[in-house]
Amino acid sequence: MKPLTIIKIGGYIIDNSEHLHQFLLDFVSLPGDKILVHGGGKIATELGESLGVEAKMVDGRRITDIETLRIVTMVYAGLINKNIVAQLQGKGSNAIGLTGADGNIIKAKKRPVVPVDYGFVGDLDENSVSSAMLDNLLKAGLVPVLCAITHDGDTQLLNTNADTIASAVAVAMSALYETQLVYCFEKKGVLKDVNDDSTVVREIREEEFELLKADGIVAGGMIPKLHNAFEAIKKGVLAVYIGKADELSELDKGVFGTKMVRIVMKKI
Amino acid sequence: MKPLTIIKIGGYIIDNSEHLHQFLLDFVSLPGDKILVHGGGKIATELGESLGVEAKMVDGRRITDIETLRIVTMVYAGLINKNIVAQLQGKGSNAIGLTGADGNIIKAKKRPVVPVDYGFVGDLDENSVSSAMLDNLLKAGLVPVLCAITHDGDTQLLNTNADTIASAVAVAMSALYETQLVYCFEKKGVLKDVNDDSTVVREIREEEFELLKADGIVAGGMIPKLHNAFEAIKKGVLAVYIGKADELSELDKGVFGTKMVRIVMKKI
Repeated sequence: MKPLTIIKIGGYIIDNSEHLHQFLLDFVSLPGDKILVHGGGKIATELGESLGVEAKMVDGRRITDIETLRIVTMVYAGLINKNIVAQLQGKGSNAIGLTGADGNIIKAKKRPVVPVDYGFVGDLDENSVSSAMLDNLLKAGLVPVLCAITHDGDTQLLNTNADTIASAVAVAMSALYETQLVYCFEKKGVLKDVNDDSTVVREIREEEFELLKADGIVAGGMIPKLHNAFEAIKKGVLAVYIGKADELSELDKGVFGTKMVRIVMKKI
Repeated sequence: MKPLTIIKIGGYIIDNSEHLHQFLLDFVSLPGDKILVHGGGKIATELGESLGVEAKMVDGRRITDIETLRIVTMVYAGLINKNIVAQLQGKGSNAIGLTGADGNIIKAKKRPVVPVDYGFVGDLDENSVSSAMLDNLLKAGLVPVLCAITHDGDTQLLNTNADTIASAVAVAMSALYETQLVYCFEKKGVLKDVNDDSTVVREIREEEFELLKADGIVAGGMIPKLHNAFEAIKKGVLAVYIGKADELSELDKGVFGTKMVRIVMKKI
């Protein structure tokens, strides 16, 4: 099987044109087949404020009402996605920007309204991603750029977490490719000391995950991220990395951020 | 060669959800390979007004400044394009929504700033459209849905007239397919009496175009439309139709609106 790298970027890169420019240069330089997944960043919030659409929150989570769905469709699928595509094209990468509705690449299920109605939010399951269609695009020499919008297959667009999309795409593609998944965020990886960038934990095996949680080294928002990472690995992804985009050029040497692996096989 | 139909829709359909729903049903029912091209309608203007972005006009034509480009990218490539794609998916058509930047399908040239600086507007030439990439997508069973945004190949998105995109795509694809081009607008076709829908001119050959202009039957905004139509025919498109979308189901019988043809070959 050929190698495939799926990279997810969020607001830290999207909201800063210099970060984005440098990231896209490094992304283009990465060898092999690639898929980019991006979230939304601040732009959707700012557009909502400009239009007087109030962010509705429940337990710290945003509700995607119909007005918010319009805004994220404009910002994620339009403004951010197409600017990334145009920039990748200018850097020599034949990018194609997509929502999950395009080519029916990601069919989600609208989240049940009980106990909390999150509105037009789509959840994914093991049948959501069309690996065959993504494979078609990769074989046509294209670099898919996926935004955090999916659909239900019955005319409704849905807002879907970009981390979840990246993970579901990596799992689905692992049937066809030797797949690695990379989450870029604002830190250099899982840090032993959260205030010291030099304390990156280079590798975490699944059996160490619980120990790191008990020690408080993996805490807060890192817990679901790492939980998702190990879920992806269980389902066929070779390795999941989490780290800072400005070190992406090191990925090819396998020394990017924190690497999560299931089984370490060593030839003796 | 296989038949291919390229259909362009504008504000008359996009701005009215009932018109759009019915059009998409008819579009899905059309046999053979298809490409849809859509313009923008009123939504971009309304969003611009909501955001306090003033429309700048020169000689009745809109200037695409950087703020306007952001708005049309959000509305055309995001909101309108992805809603059309989700609706087509729900109606059983495997649509894929694209700008010209995606897959480098349409590479435009920024319009020269002399004598008038129209801003971020892209013009097309005979090398702009990648018929090979569109052919790839069609062969993958996809229905391309193109919006009126292109790029210059050097990181810049550009605003490009949707009629022009439809015509350029039809011409480029005519090397690979038996291509017909359909312009949907608010009238039933070229009318002998502009106030009487029953006076549709069913067929216009190129040599009749000048006569119809002299008679005033083709006047105003119809002149450039028909001029473009005959240009497309000269460059390989088999036929160009102009008519009202609600009669699209008749297209397959060749009796939609006004048909423009170059040479009428009749077997005796």
